[in-house]
Amino acid sequence: MLPCARRLDEAIDLDYPGAASMKAESISIGTEILLGEILDTNAQYIASRLPALGIDLYWMTQVGDNLDRLSEAIRRAWDRSDLILTTGGLGPTEDDLTREAIAAALDEPLSVDGKMEAQLRAFFSSRGLVMPERNVKQAALIPSARPIANPRGTAPGWWVKRDGRILVAMPGPPVEMERMWEEEVAPRLAKLATGGVIVSRTLKTMGIGEGSVDEMVGPLLRSTNPSVAVYAKADGVHLRITAKAASREEAQRLIAPMEEEARGILGKTIWGADDETLEAAVGAMLRERGLSVATMESCTGGLLASTITDAAGSSSYFKGGFVAYTGEMKIALGVDEELVRRHGVVSQEVARDMARAVRERLGADFGIGITGVAGPEPLEDKPVGTIHIALDDPDTSGQAISYTFAQSRAAIKRRAVTTALFLLRRALLGR
Amino acid sequence: MLPCARRLDEAIDLDYPGAASMKAESISIGTEILLGEILDTNAQYIASRLPALGIDLYWMTQVGDNLDRLSEAIRRAWDRSDLILTTGGLGPTEDDLTREAIAAALDEPLSVDGKMEAQLRAFFSSRGLVMPERNVKQAALIPSARPIANPRGTAPGWWVKRDGRILVAMPGPPVEMERMWEEEVAPRLAKLATGGVIVSRTLKTMGIGEGSVDEMVGPLLRSTNPSVAVYAKADGVHLRITAKAASREEAQRLIAPMEEEARGILGKTIWGADDETLEAAVGAMLRERGLSVATMESCTGGLLASTITDAAGSSSYFKGGFVAYTGEMKIALGVDEELVRRHGVVSQEVARDMARAVRERLGADFGIGITGVAGPEPLEDKPVGTIHIALDDPDTSGQAISYTFAQSRAAIKRRAVTTALFLLRRALLGR
Repeated sequence: MLPCARRLDEAIDLDYPGAASMKAESISIGTEILLGEILDTNAQYIASRLPALGIDLYWMTQVGDNLDRLSEAIRRAWDRSDLILTTGGLGPTEDDLTREAIAAALDEPLSVDGKMEAQLRAFFSSRGLVMPERNVKQAALIPSARPIANPRGTAPGWWVKRDGRILVAMPGPPVEMERMWEEEVAPRLAKLATGGVIVSRTLKTMGIGEGSVDEMVGPLLRSTNPSVAVYAKADGVHLRITAKAASREEAQRLIAPMEEEARGILGKTIWGADDETLEAAVGAMLRERGLSVATMESCTGGLLASTITDAAGSSSYFKGGFVAYTGEMKIALGVDEELVRRHGVVSQEVARDMARAVRERLGADFGIGITGVAGPEPLEDKPVGTIHIALDDPDTSGQAISYTFAQSRAAIKRRAVTTALFLLRRALLGR
Repeated sequence: MLPCARRLDEAIDLDYPGAASMKAESISIGTEILLGEILDTNAQYIASRLPALGIDLYWMTQVGDNLDRLSEAIRRAWDRSDLILTTGGLGPTEDDLTREAIAAALDEPLSVDGKMEAQLRAFFSSRGLVMPERNVKQAALIPSARPIANPRGTAPGWWVKRDGRILVAMPGPPVEMERMWEEEVAPRLAKLATGGVIVSRTLKTMGIGEGSVDEMVGPLLRSTNPSVAVYAKADGVHLRITAKAASREEAQRLIAPMEEEARGILGKTIWGADDETLEAAVGAMLRERGLSVATMESCTGGLLASTITDAAGSSSYFKGGFVAYTGEMKIALGVDEELVRRHGVVSQEVARDMARAVRERLGADFGIGITGVAGPEPLEDKPVGTIHIALDDPDTSGQAISYTFAQSRAAIKRRAVTTALFLLRRALLGR
């Protein structure tokens, strides 16, 4: 038990033997989740906040509004986990069964709490409403449960403590759940969990495949604390270093040498870390060097410009962009008509001239031109997915990449934008 | 067993006793899900597609890259479900353990399949690469498993059949998983599942709130089959009509009269149905009327042009776009300098003139101008989230909407683009 915890928290008795190493699991409740009608963002919200509390999340489960399956899920969780976090099923309707399922799983009687019922009626009258009688069930408790306030809704949460285990039942609407988590649940858990914290550091690379990164850093992957893992993402391959320690500082001390080693191996293929986006990383390089960029896009239809301007402060280095969907507009914007006639608009020659034209017209240091076939129909007999990306700058002859990437229209656009930013970054590394 | 299934499907023996009432469960694999670093969209994707196959999804689970817990999850699923659908953990790295966990749970030996290994090496050499040795594990199988092709990646799926149960292992990257689902998995499951089907029809509205829609269609909400539900979404309020029946056709017969009634009530507020996007709906209206549009964007940075061109065939009505991030560029593109000086770039006057200038310059029937403050810093003392959207056409004085939407940079951009498309649709309804 944690005497300090008991001393610290007046609201709830925090005596909790298992605190030093809390195994947690989340259960998201609602048939609409299992029908795919809504995305279960509550589970991710909770998952993303547990590491900093030093609580390990081992299982996430979604189950429908079915008393048997829901009770079974809670019973199993009660057997294997120290902390169970449920969301949903606390509403007033007949298929809100979380309270009933917890009572069944823990074999405890469910009864209406007079004080809670009064508060609930007050909640309604404060809004000039009369409480529908079916809402009374929201004032029910079991002996092991204590209510958790929910100022944003009618469903109070439950804090259930028994057999050295804790179950926290929270409402499903994210605005109610998140407020309850931040104000009520997280602070209490922070006092319980003395199992140290988990800190992660993600290094983001470009230009090498998942398998290659895995081989390059092979020896590091055997380390257990910090642990090292490789993930393939849309913006390149990520390397994640994760350390568990008593404090954030200690975890960072474990990560530092591993990060240094990884950086030594991966070198310039690393373009950013943690939440940094490629557009922000490239934008920072442009700002540092006092350089600017302008874009002329065809098949990406403005997605490159939009992505570049997703980075805050981009106005200081983004000179502007043209979305030139037709050959006429490209020519009107300064692309050599002769090149278009000779090679067609879907050609590396035209991509290069688009980059040059927009750089000159908007007075930028770099110009990027993208032309290709986003589909669904081929263009100029060039297959869907044919992409030409060119970078123009005054000093060099510029660079260009051409490839075919036969995928969905959206995927083709995204891939082209990422490639264009990779191209720009490579050029900036030389500056 | 289903003799027809066996006859129909050459690829795989579909003999399957439990087909008539398939209980399914999904397992999403990856520690990054349990750390809250990525949102598990694969499970929702699968969940949303099972009802139409008449397959009931009873459980969704997420588990990390841990051999014991993963094997335990698979073992339990094997005990309680007819169909198990896993995503993730098929990569080449050391913590991709799905194959190992299935082998352990089913107690079958894992061995490399020569033919698959050859295909894998061919996949790499076709891209001018040498396969890293660690990718060999992606060619491993157990006796009960057959490979499922994955043209979009190096990880083949598994179709495991034993004890009247089926386990399908799919890769984690959505672009690979979704293609495998659509081309390989769903068609096979469709032949197995002979339970009734659930069919949904979604009507998408604009310009009225959730509460209003709820009131307008109030009586319809009491219907049970088909059932009717109202959802508030980013592109307006959706009305979903869902019917359960023995066949798709029968379900559609149940939906048709309800849809007619709903359309009678909601009228022109309905802009599309099911998977139709707003840009596709507006694009179709432009094409039908032989009209065109051009854009000049400031704070949305090209997202409007990119969204318009997300619709296939947009080249027939999208004349092009300018991303004019600076006042100078706006003026260079024909915006009245006097207006900019008098009202500032973030003003409805300038938005209107941007719309006029781009319409005239690109010879379009409609011009759209967007200016505002996407943040994080205020501009011209106008608060973050201030947005001015204007539509210009030759016949009328045009229309404009101004509002403040204090949210994240990305949300501000998305909201402005949706509003611009709503504005364009409203104008097209008059044509």
